[in-house]
Amino acid sequence: MKATRSTGRAIIDCDVHPYPKSVDEIRSYMQEPWKSRYRGSGRGFFDNPVHGMRLDATPPNGGGAGTDPDFVREQLLKPFGHEYAVLMPRAFCNLLPDPDYATAIAAAYNEWLADTWLGKHNADGVFKGSITIAHQDPHAAAREIERWAGHPHFVQVMTDSGARAPFGQRQYYPIYEACEKHGLPFAIHPGTDGMGINVQPSPGYPTHYIEWHTCLSLAFQAHLVSFLTEGVFERFPGFKIVLVEGGVSWLPGLMWRLDQEYKALRYEVPWMTKRPSEYLRDHVRISSQPLERPDDDGHLLQMLTMMDAEHILMFASDYPHWDFDSPKHAFPKLPDAMARRIFYENAKEFYKL
Amino acid sequence: MKATRSTGRAIIDCDVHPYPKSVDEIRSYMQEPWKSRYRGSGRGFFDNPVHGMRLDATPPNGGGAGTDPDFVREQLLKPFGHEYAVLMPRAFCNLLPDPDYATAIAAAYNEWLADTWLGKHNADGVFKGSITIAHQDPHAAAREIERWAGHPHFVQVMTDSGARAPFGQRQYYPIYEACEKHGLPFAIHPGTDGMGINVQPSPGYPTHYIEWHTCLSLAFQAHLVSFLTEGVFERFPGFKIVLVEGGVSWLPGLMWRLDQEYKALRYEVPWMTKRPSEYLRDHVRISSQPLERPDDDGHLLQMLTMMDAEHILMFASDYPHWDFDSPKHAFPKLPDAMARRIFYENAKEFYKL
Repeated sequence: MKATRSTGRAIIDCDVHPYPKSVDEIRSYMQEPWKSRYRGSGRGFFDNPVHGMRLDATPPNGGGAGTDPDFVREQLLKPFGHEYAVLMPRAFCNLLPDPDYATAIAAAYNEWLADTWLGKHNADGVFKGSITIAHQDPHAAAREIERWAGHPHFVQVMTDSGARAPFGQRQYYPIYEACEKHGLPFAIHPGTDGMGINVQPSPGYPTHYIEWHTCLSLAFQAHLVSFLTEGVFERFPGFKIVLVEGGVSWLPGLMWRLDQEYKALRYEVPWMTKRPSEYLRDHVRISSQPLERPDDDGHLLQMLTMMDAEHILMFASDYPHWDFDSPKHAFPKLPDAMARRIFYENAKEFYKL
Repeated sequence: MKATRSTGRAIIDCDVHPYPKSVDEIRSYMQEPWKSRYRGSGRGFFDNPVHGMRLDATPPNGGGAGTDPDFVREQLLKPFGHEYAVLMPRAFCNLLPDPDYATAIAAAYNEWLADTWLGKHNADGVFKGSITIAHQDPHAAAREIERWAGHPHFVQVMTDSGARAPFGQRQYYPIYEACEKHGLPFAIHPGTDGMGINVQPSPGYPTHYIEWHTCLSLAFQAHLVSFLTEGVFERFPGFKIVLVEGGVSWLPGLMWRLDQEYKALRYEVPWMTKRPSEYLRDHVRISSQPLERPDDDGHLLQMLTMMDAEHILMFASDYPHWDFDSPKHAFPKLPDAMARRIFYENAKEFYKL
């Protein structure tokens, strides 16, 4: 026991934090596959353990994948002949506990998008944007929608599928009221499920990225059932939604199941004036990526027919993400009329382009 | 202010509880549809708002639906010619926070079932039983399995789909080790999802019974993905599961999706030595009720073909519940070979009957 010069007391300090100088110091003590996955304490929670971006999507003039509008034109729009690209920025504000901070991030993303991709880099008008909102504060979200409604290039409102309650519930209605008023569809995209304040849409936390990513589609199914059974499309007859990157082939089975439940239980939801599946064509669209590809193309074609893909499905590539769907290779050979609607007409009508 | 005789003090008591003499007192102040649904404070959380049992299933000699083995013979087994009925008791012990109490309930259910339905009421051996376990305590559950393994009429282990973690996770492995050791399949049945200690397998709580009941199938999908991606069937090669009352038509789309993810992400799950869907025929069965019935029987037949129903699907009626599937009417006309396997052979092989 020795007294120090400064206090004259012997001291044992029971909480002092040592940090590695870089993540690489810790990595050097790890084996693969963990070594190349580790990005620092608490990171990599549900990050793709391989890579999150197409490796060839890094722009030659610097910056990360998806940061250079001109390179996106070169790599995506020109080669495939895209007439429009609907932009889905990734603000991740829906996972934050502070609704004011989340709303500030959403507003900043919208201003940035309007200035850049939808502004000075959009002389040809090929880029159409999504209004980012923080759905934790539906009234603030509605004000953010009001702020951008009428902008020539914002064509929808977007949020992430991660949530604390299914999206059909009434606390969200100020958002839907604003969407309906301005004819803006509401797009739901995966990304904050089970993160921050959001509950995990499965029975407890999945372990691996492959499990988490596969089960993302379950959140979309639950949100859709909620929209339908809560009667959102009765309360807001002009309101439309699009489920982006939530999977495709679950739709027929889910609607068969819900229609059957409705037959027995409609007493509980008297505001539903028709079968759940009958709301889809007027109010719901599904985007195609990641399109499931069974071994037998015929099975996928049967599934697309069952779900009325000709009216419900809209093409999406998810560029520049790792699981990009190429317009040339994602689908098997489709009947011409179906292909035309999926790749072009459904979105043209839905977004009034 | 007046002083009382007993204390000599003036008293204001700020917490005194008044109770209605019966639920009917409160009901008399309610309107329909709430009036007939209300069963007392906190009850009716996710109870069927119409009725949970077939109204004609109440035995003539007293007791509730499903309490009289002889009446079940009269109403179900004889008219349809059932050779065996696999019994799924409903102990609801998996929602309890106390694992010892939950385990005691499971044990009591097993003793009761062995004494009655599998004992003195089972001279003809038509009833086969499920060993109820409390999966909150996997080691205690394994001991309970050991206790009944070898009983001539217990043919599987069962639990509810409600859970705090997906069933592929390693904390459950003592259960699967015991199942494998004794050749007992592990059956998962809905019922405690989002109740008690169990998380809700959707993004927050659904509002209505129709929504909750429709989305029960999402828990099954998440559990199946967990079993597959965690490599449970590699670790326990003799282990088999059956998903009971979790829906049917979601299987093809989910397996297409997971197979596709596996193609890109198998680096993360190197213990999976083949595509996820390839484990199904050896390890997974799905029971048929509630079978989805789309308007077009042809679509259902396509779906059954896609999922290899001829090997994967086993008939179940869910007697005496409200959404009972009759062996005569639940299915459209099936090819003979498929019908024979679904109604009889798949279960005969699976349960070694």
